[in-house]
Amino acid sequence: MTAPIHRKHAAPMRWDGVDVLAYKRDPASPFRDVTRQVLFDDPALASQLRYFEVAPGGHTTLERHEHAHAVIVAHGRGRCLVDGRIFELALHDLVRVPALAWHQFRAAPDAPLGFLCMVNAERDRPQLPTADELAGLTSVPAIAAFLRE
Amino acid sequence: MTAPIHRKHAAPMRWDGVDVLAYKRDPASPFRDVTRQVLFDDPALASQLRYFEVAPGGHTTLERHEHAHAVIVAHGRGRCLVDGRIFELALHDLVRVPALAWHQFRAAPDAPLGFLCMVNAERDRPQLPTADELAGLTSVPAIAAFLRE
Repeated sequence: MTAPIHRKHAAPMRWDGVDVLAYKRDPASPFRDVTRQVLFDDPALASQLRYFEVAPGGHTTLERHEHAHAVIVAHGRGRCLVDGRIFELALHDLVRVPALAWHQFRAAPDAPLGFLCMVNAERDRPQLPTADELAGLTSVPAIAAFLRE
Repeated sequence: MTAPIHRKHAAPMRWDGVDVLAYKRDPASPFRDVTRQVLFDDPALASQLRYFEVAPGGHTTLERHEHAHAVIVAHGRGRCLVDGRIFELALHDLVRVPALAWHQFRAAPDAPLGFLCMVNAERDRPQLPTADELAGLTSVPAIAAFLRE
Protein backbone atom coordinates (compact mmCIF):
# COMPACT_ATOMS: atom_id res chain seq x y z
CA MET A 1 0.00 0.00 0.00
CA THR A 2 1.32 3.43 -0.87
CA ALA A 3 1.99 5.70 2.10
CA PRO A 4 0.13 9.02 2.49
CA ILE A 5 1.96 12.08 1.15
CA HIS A 6 2.45 13.54 4.65
CA ARG A 7 2.99 11.55 7.83
CA LYS A 8 3.47 13.52 11.02
CA HIS A 9 6.16 12.86 13.58
CA ALA A 10 3.70 11.90 16.29
CA ALA A 11 5.95 11.31 19.34
CA PRO A 12 9.73 11.16 19.77
CA MET A 13 10.93 8.94 16.90
CA ARG A 14 7.44 7.63 16.20
CA TRP A 15 5.34 8.43 13.13
CA ASP A 16 1.69 8.31 12.15
CA GLY A 17 1.00 5.09 10.27
CA VAL A 18 4.47 3.59 10.82
CA ASP A 19 4.55 0.33 12.79
CA VAL A 20 7.23 -0.27 15.40
CA LEU A 21 8.62 -3.70 14.56
CA ALA A 22 10.94 -6.14 16.20
CA TYR A 23 14.34 -5.74 14.55
CA LYS A 24 14.75 -9.37 13.45
CA ARG A 25 12.59 -12.42 13.39
CA ASP A 26 15.45 -14.87 12.95
CA PRO A 27 16.32 -16.28 16.40
CA ALA A 28 19.80 -17.22 15.14
CA SER A 29 20.74 -13.51 14.84
CA PRO A 30 21.97 -12.30 18.21
CA PHE A 31 20.86 -8.76 19.01
CA ARG A 32 19.45 -6.91 22.00
CA ASP A 33 16.78 -4.25 22.46
CA VAL A 34 16.38 -2.99 18.89
CA THR A 35 13.29 -1.71 17.08
CA ARG A 36 12.80 -1.11 13.36
CA GLN A 37 10.46 1.29 11.57
CA VAL A 38 10.22 1.35 7.79
CA LEU A 39 9.74 5.03 6.89
CA PHE A 40 9.81 4.72 3.09
CA ASP A 41 9.26 1.55 1.09
CA ASP A 42 7.87 2.64 -2.25
CA PRO A 43 8.05 0.77 -5.59
CA ALA A 44 8.95 4.13 -7.19
CA LEU A 45 12.15 4.26 -5.11
CA ALA A 46 15.17 2.00 -5.60
CA SER A 47 15.98 2.19 -1.88
CA GLN A 48 14.23 1.98 1.45
CA LEU A 49 14.68 4.31 4.39
CA ARG A 50 14.36 2.69 7.81
CA TYR A 51 14.74 3.98 11.36
CA PHE A 52 16.41 1.69 13.89
CA GLU A 53 16.60 2.39 17.56
CA VAL A 54 18.88 0.52 19.94
CA ALA A 55 17.95 0.87 23.62
CA PRO A 56 20.67 1.87 26.14
CA GLY A 57 23.16 -0.99 26.43
CA GLY A 58 21.69 -2.81 23.42
CA HIS A 59 23.22 -3.71 20.06
CA THR A 60 22.38 -4.82 16.54
CA THR A 61 23.48 -8.15 15.07
CA LEU A 62 27.13 -8.50 14.10
CA GLU A 63 26.78 -9.28 10.39
CA ARG A 64 27.90 -8.57 6.85
CA HIS A 65 26.35 -8.67 3.38
CA GLU A 66 27.03 -7.68 -0.22
CA HIS A 67 24.73 -4.65 -0.02
CA ALA A 68 25.90 -1.33 1.43
CA HIS A 69 24.30 0.80 4.15
CA ALA A 70 24.14 4.58 4.40
CA VAL A 71 23.47 5.62 8.00
CA ILE A 72 22.80 8.95 9.72
CA VAL A 73 22.42 9.13 13.49
CA ALA A 74 19.04 10.71 14.29
CA HIS A 75 18.76 10.26 18.07
CA GLY A 76 21.04 9.56 21.03
CA ARG A 77 24.58 8.24 20.79
CA GLY A 78 26.70 5.12 20.80
CA ARG A 79 29.42 3.42 18.81
CA CYS A 80 29.79 1.22 15.79
CA LEU A 81 32.18 -1.38 14.49
CA VAL A 82 32.64 -1.23 10.71
CA ASP A 83 35.29 -3.16 8.81
CA GLY A 84 37.57 -3.63 11.82
CA ARG A 85 37.33 -0.04 13.06
CA ILE A 86 35.36 1.37 16.00
CA PHE A 87 33.76 4.83 15.82
CA GLU A 88 32.08 7.01 18.45
CA LEU A 89 28.68 8.15 17.16
CA ALA A 90 26.86 11.38 17.99
CA LEU A 91 23.78 13.09 16.55
CA HIS A 92 23.82 13.48 12.75
CA ASP A 93 27.10 11.61 12.25
CA LEU A 94 27.29 9.72 8.94
CA VAL A 95 28.39 6.08 8.58
CA ARG A 96 28.99 4.19 5.35
CA VAL A 97 28.97 0.40 5.64
CA PRO A 98 30.75 -1.01 2.56
CA ALA A 99 30.00 -4.36 0.93
CA LEU A 100 31.00 -7.37 3.05
CA ALA A 101 32.21 -5.26 6.00
CA TRP A 102 31.42 -6.81 9.39
CA HIS A 103 29.39 -4.26 11.32
CA GLN A 104 27.51 -3.76 14.55
CA PHE A 105 25.87 -0.71 16.15
CA ARG A 106 25.80 -0.30 19.94
CA ALA A 107 23.93 2.23 22.04
CA ALA A 108 25.73 3.99 24.89
CA PRO A 109 25.16 2.38 28.32
CA ASP A 110 23.05 5.39 29.33
CA ALA A 111 21.50 6.56 26.05
CA PRO A 112 19.68 5.03 23.07
CA LEU A 113 21.15 5.04 19.59
CA GLY A 114 18.65 5.84 16.82
CA PHE A 115 19.67 6.01 13.19
CA LEU A 116 18.23 6.30 9.71
CA CYS A 117 19.50 3.63 7.32
CA MET A 118 19.22 3.82 3.54
CA VAL A 119 19.52 0.50 1.77
CA ASN A 120 18.82 -0.88 -1.71
CA ALA A 121 15.34 -2.36 -1.99
CA GLU A 122 16.86 -5.43 -3.72
CA ARG A 123 19.55 -6.89 -1.54
CA ASP A 124 21.16 -10.11 -0.33
CA ARG A 125 20.58 -11.72 3.05
CA PRO A 126 22.96 -10.89 5.93
CA GLN A 127 25.63 -13.42 6.89
CA LEU A 128 26.55 -14.19 10.49
CA PRO A 129 30.20 -14.86 11.38
CA THR A 130 31.37 -18.46 11.59
CA ALA A 131 33.24 -19.50 14.73
CA ASP A 132 36.51 -19.00 12.83
CA GLU A 133 35.50 -15.55 11.56
CA LEU A 134 34.47 -14.53 15.07
CA ALA A 135 37.79 -15.76 16.45
CA GLY A 136 39.55 -13.67 13.79
CA LEU A 137 37.59 -10.56 14.74
CA THR A 138 38.08 -11.00 18.48
CA SER A 139 41.82 -11.55 18.08
CA VAL A 140 41.96 -7.74 18.05
CA PRO A 141 41.59 -6.71 21.73
CA ALA A 142 39.65 -3.50 20.99
CA ILE A 143 37.12 -5.44 18.89
CA ALA A 144 36.85 -8.18 21.51
CA ALA A 145 36.12 -5.50 24.15
CA PHE A 146 33.57 -3.78 21.87
CA LEU A 147 31.68 -7.03 21.25
CA ARG A 148 31.80 -8.06 24.92
CA GLU A 149 30.31 -4.84 26.33
CA MET B 1 35.75 9.12 -4.75
CA THR B 2 34.38 6.90 -2.03
CA ALA B 3 33.50 8.64 1.22
CA PRO B 4 35.23 7.71 4.50
CA ILE B 5 33.38 5.19 6.67
CA HIS B 6 32.69 7.77 9.39
CA ARG B 7 32.06 11.46 8.83
CA LYS B 8 31.37 13.56 11.89
CA HIS B 9 28.59 16.09 12.22
CA ALA B 10 30.96 19.04 12.54
CA ALA B 11 28.59 21.98 13.12
CA PRO B 12 24.80 22.33 13.00
CA MET B 13 23.80 20.59 9.76
CA ARG B 14 27.35 20.58 8.42
CA TRP B 15 29.56 17.51 8.01
CA ASP B 16 33.27 16.78 7.69
CA GLY B 17 34.15 16.40 4.01
CA VAL B 18 30.69 17.39 2.69
CA ASP B 19 30.62 20.52 0.52
CA VAL B 20 27.83 23.07 0.89
CA LEU B 21 26.59 23.64 -2.64
CA ALA B 22 24.26 26.08 -4.32
CA TYR B 23 20.92 24.31 -4.75
CA LYS B 24 20.68 24.74 -8.54
CA ARG B 25 22.96 25.97 -11.26
CA ASP B 26 20.18 26.47 -13.81
CA PRO B 27 19.23 30.17 -13.75
CA ALA B 28 15.82 29.30 -15.26
CA SER B 29 14.77 27.51 -12.03
CA PRO B 30 13.35 30.08 -9.63
CA PHE B 31 14.30 29.39 -6.02
CA ARG B 32 15.52 31.42 -3.07
CA ASP B 33 18.08 30.83 -0.32
CA VAL B 34 18.61 27.08 -0.58
CA THR B 35 21.75 25.00 -0.01
CA ARG B 36 22.40 21.38 -0.96
CA GLN B 37 24.74 18.84 0.63
CA VAL B 38 25.16 15.36 -0.83
CA LEU B 39 25.57 13.07 2.19
CA PHE B 40 25.68 9.72 0.37
CA ASP B 41 26.41 9.18 -3.32
CA ASP B 42 27.92 5.73 -3.61
CA PRO B 43 27.95 3.45 -6.67
CA ALA B 44 27.03 0.59 -4.30
CA LEU B 45 23.74 2.34 -3.48
CA ALA B 46 20.81 2.72 -5.89
CA SER B 47 19.81 6.02 -4.25
CA GLN B 48 21.42 9.20 -3.01
CA LEU B 49 20.77 10.93 0.29
CA ARG B 50 20.98 14.72 0.19
CA TYR B 51 20.39 17.43 2.80
CA PHE B 52 18.68 20.61 1.66
CA GLU B 53 18.30 23.69 3.78
CA VAL B 54 15.97 26.54 2.92
CA ALA B 55 16.72 29.81 4.78
CA PRO B 56 13.86 31.60 6.59
CA GLY B 57 11.45 32.96 3.98
CA GLY B 58 13.10 30.98 1.17
CA HIS B 59 11.75 28.24 -1.08
CA THR B 60 12.78 25.49 -3.49
CA THR B 61 11.87 25.48 -7.18
CA LEU B 62 8.27 24.62 -8.05
CA GLU B 63 8.82 21.57 -10.25
CA ARG B 64 7.84 18.02 -11.10
CA HIS B 65 9.55 14.92 -12.51
CA GLU B 66 9.02 11.21 -13.08
CA HIS B 67 11.19 10.21 -10.13
CA ALA B 68 9.87 10.18 -6.57
CA HIS B 69 11.27 11.84 -3.46
CA ALA B 70 11.30 10.55 0.12
CA VAL B 71 11.77 13.43 2.55
CA ILE B 72 12.27 13.66 6.31
CA VAL B 73 12.48 17.04 8.02
CA ALA B 74 15.76 17.24 9.94
CA HIS B 75 15.88 20.88 11.07
CA GLY B 76 13.49 23.80 11.53
CA ARG B 77 10.01 24.02 10.06
CA GLY B 78 7.97 25.23 7.13
CA ARG B 79 5.41 24.02 4.65
CA CYS B 80 5.25 22.12 1.40
CA LEU B 81 2.99 21.94 -1.62
CA VAL B 82 2.71 18.41 -3.03
CA ASP B 83 0.21 17.37 -5.68
CA GLY B 84 -2.20 20.24 -5.00
CA ARG B 85 -2.12 19.92 -1.21
CA ILE B 86 -0.34 22.09 1.36
CA PHE B 87 1.16 20.58 4.53
CA GLU B 88 2.66 22.14 7.64
CA LEU B 89 6.08 20.61 8.34
CA ALA B 90 7.77 20.11 11.69
CA LEU B 91 10.87 18.20 12.82
CA HIS B 92 10.98 14.57 11.64
CA ASP B 93 7.79 14.78 9.56
CA LEU B 94 7.80 12.50 6.49
CA VAL B 95 6.83 13.62 2.98
CA ARG B 96 6.44 11.43 -0.08
CA VAL B 97 6.55 13.23 -3.43
CA PRO B 98 4.96 10.93 -6.04
CA ALA B 99 5.87 10.82 -9.73
CA LEU B 100 4.87 13.96 -11.66
CA ALA B 101 3.47 15.76 -8.60
CA TRP B 102 4.16 19.49 -8.61
CA HIS B 103 6.01 20.29 -5.41
CA GLN B 104 7.73 23.10 -3.55
CA PHE B 105 9.20 23.37 -0.03
CA ARG B 106 9.08 26.68 1.87
CA ALA B 107 10.79 27.62 5.12
CA ALA B 108 8.80 29.45 7.78
CA PRO B 109 9.27 33.25 7.74
CA ASP B 110 11.23 33.01 11.00
CA ALA B 111 12.89 29.57 10.80
CA PRO B 112 14.89 27.55 8.29
CA LEU B 113 13.59 24.31 6.81
CA GLY B 114 16.17 21.54 6.54
CA PHE B 115 15.33 18.12 5.17
CA LEU B 116 16.93 14.87 4.10
CA CYS B 117 15.84 13.73 0.64
CA MET B 118 16.29 10.20 -0.70
CA VAL B 119 16.17 9.94 -4.48
CA ASN B 120 17.07 7.34 -7.10
CA ALA B 121 20.60 7.79 -8.41
CA GLU B 122 19.26 7.40 -11.97
CA ARG B 123 16.52 9.91 -12.57
CA ASP B 124 14.95 12.28 -15.07
CA ARG B 125 15.42 16.04 -15.16
CA PRO B 126 12.89 18.26 -13.33
CA GLN B 127 10.26 20.08 -15.39
CA LEU B 128 9.19 23.66 -14.69
CA PRO B 129 5.53 24.62 -15.09
CA THR B 130 4.46 26.25 -18.36
CA ALA B 131 2.47 29.48 -18.13
CA ASP B 132 -0.73 27.43 -18.60
CA GLU B 133 0.25 24.91 -15.91
CA LEU B 134 1.10 27.73 -13.50
CA ALA B 135 -2.26 29.38 -14.23
CA GLY B 136 -3.95 26.06 -13.48
CA LEU B 137 -2.12 25.70 -10.16
CA THR B 138 -2.78 29.29 -9.06
CA SER B 139 -6.47 29.05 -9.91
CA VAL B 140 -6.73 27.46 -6.44
CA PRO B 141 -6.58 30.41 -3.99
CA ALA B 142 -4.69 28.50 -1.28
CA ILE B 143 -2.01 27.45 -3.78
CA ALA B 144 -1.78 30.95 -5.20
CA ALA B 145 -1.26 32.30 -1.67
CA PHE B 146 1.35 29.61 -0.90
CA LEU B 147 3.36 30.40 -4.03
CA ARG B 148 3.08 34.17 -3.49
CA GLU B 149 4.44 34.22 0.07
